[in-house]
Amino acid sequence: MCEASAYIIDGDSQELIMEAVDSVEPEDGGYKLINIFGEQKFVKGAIHSLSLVDHKVFLTKS
Amino acid sequence: MCEASAYIIDGDSQELIMEAVDSVEPEDGGYKLINIFGEQKFVKGAIHSLSLVDHKVFLTKS
Repeated sequence: MCEASAYIIDGDSQELIMEAVDSVEPEDGGYKLINIFGEQKFVKGAIHSLSLVDHKVFLTKS
Repeated sequence: MCEASAYIIDGDSQELIMEAVDSVEPEDGGYKLINIFGEQKFVKGAIHSLSLVDHKVFLTKS
């Protein structure tokens, strides 16, 4: 399985907001994250970068 | 390994632009894709969505 952990980056810090993320879909000026357990979380912001081999998705809040 | 394939989406169509993508980094109004072989590709646009369990990253051109 190739799910990832999602982090909000803010300057030099990173906050883990969800593990085992499967899909990230645009919605209402942000992104809806859905993990493999079906849990959902909305982030108002943007996808900053990806590091897939490290299983990491970075977002920034707007 | 959890690299993904990167697609440009344009309406209903999807164009595969790179396989085995590891990192996607913001750069100059777009994103630099780097795959596990060290190949790089620049896309002027945005990350649209992710489907990580399917190993897919979708971008849109600006």
